[in-house]
Amino acid sequence: MISKEIQNLIKLLSKLPGLGPRSGRRAALHLMKQKESFLIPLTDALQDVIKKISVCRCGNVDAQSPCSLCSDPKRDGSLLCIVEDVDDLWALERSGCYGGHYHVLGGVLSALDGIGPEELRLKSLMQRLQEKKFQEIILALGATLDGETTLHYVYDQVFPLVNQVTRLSHGVPVGGELEYLDDGTIQRAFKSRHGV
Amino acid sequence: MISKEIQNLIKLLSKLPGLGPRSGRRAALHLMKQKESFLIPLTDALQDVIKKISVCRCGNVDAQSPCSLCSDPKRDGSLLCIVEDVDDLWALERSGCYGGHYHVLGGVLSALDGIGPEELRLKSLMQRLQEKKFQEIILALGATLDGETTLHYVYDQVFPLVNQVTRLSHGVPVGGELEYLDDGTIQRAFKSRHGV
Repeated sequence: MISKEIQNLIKLLSKLPGLGPRSGRRAALHLMKQKESFLIPLTDALQDVIKKISVCRCGNVDAQSPCSLCSDPKRDGSLLCIVEDVDDLWALERSGCYGGHYHVLGGVLSALDGIGPEELRLKSLMQRLQEKKFQEIILALGATLDGETTLHYVYDQVFPLVNQVTRLSHGVPVGGELEYLDDGTIQRAFKSRHGV
Repeated sequence: MISKEIQNLIKLLSKLPGLGPRSGRRAALHLMKQKESFLIPLTDALQDVIKKISVCRCGNVDAQSPCSLCSDPKRDGSLLCIVEDVDDLWALERSGCYGGHYHVLGGVLSALDGIGPEELRLKSLMQRLQEKKFQEIILALGATLDGETTLHYVYDQVFPLVNQVTRLSHGVPVGGELEYLDDGTIQRAFKSRHGV
């Protein structure tokens, strides 16, 4: 009853993170109802991204290659921050606390999801480290089980090649109340207490 | 820091129903990560819909015009079911309880959202009723305040032109427990009780 073009669109929209079969249907109708103001602009935007956006050697996505971060001479070339994905890079850039270079792994090791070291962008990381000497590598990975596993794996690979390898600190998040924190976070924050 | 092509894509994806700025960002990255298997197929599917799908006179969306429902000679030409939107039409078709024709209003009257009679597909409805005599018009609108308002408005317009105008019954939804139903539904179901 629903034409195959619409069914195909619904099927693909349903695969977007955050959408399912029902909301995919709603999204497809929403798009078709606003052909000129939404459907066509979205299609053009996707085509633009297909044509112009490429993955930089560092794993960032940008319209230029090397990406605007890699080719910015004002950034500190002695620092390399390793992140799981591009949105982590964006989060760090939004925070404004870091001015060095990045390497995006494109995921974390996960036995459950069948993601091994070959699936991550580790080969290009090792190449970068062999070509250029960094003073410090910052492992900015999430504090999940898979994130920790990946952190230790990457540490083992990179520590012979760099002066200093660091990781983000654990502790009470800014604005967080002790009452609502999990035990692990409180224990970590307590252990790494420091002078006021 | 994020290239304008990606920003534009995120902005548009965020406008999809069910997505917001954060999930729009996630969706954009998800698409860019799977260029061949997701980004390009989705773009092609959208282009297919732009090229092939049009709005039928009845308000349905289809690759053929008149749509497959309007041009199906097996459907009962004496019945016309009026629905708010295409997804209501799809829901009725899935239920398999109806074999007549449809007219999609494209919305309901809403003072709050500034949707008056001119915004609905009422002119084409009146034209269809003048051209062809239907035996029964079924007003299958949602049981919301706006749905009720629209139902009464459409009823006033169509009742001089048709033998019979009906509406869906109110009552206990199948699988529903009285305990969890609202007062309005229980009152309606009680009032319209009938022999077993």
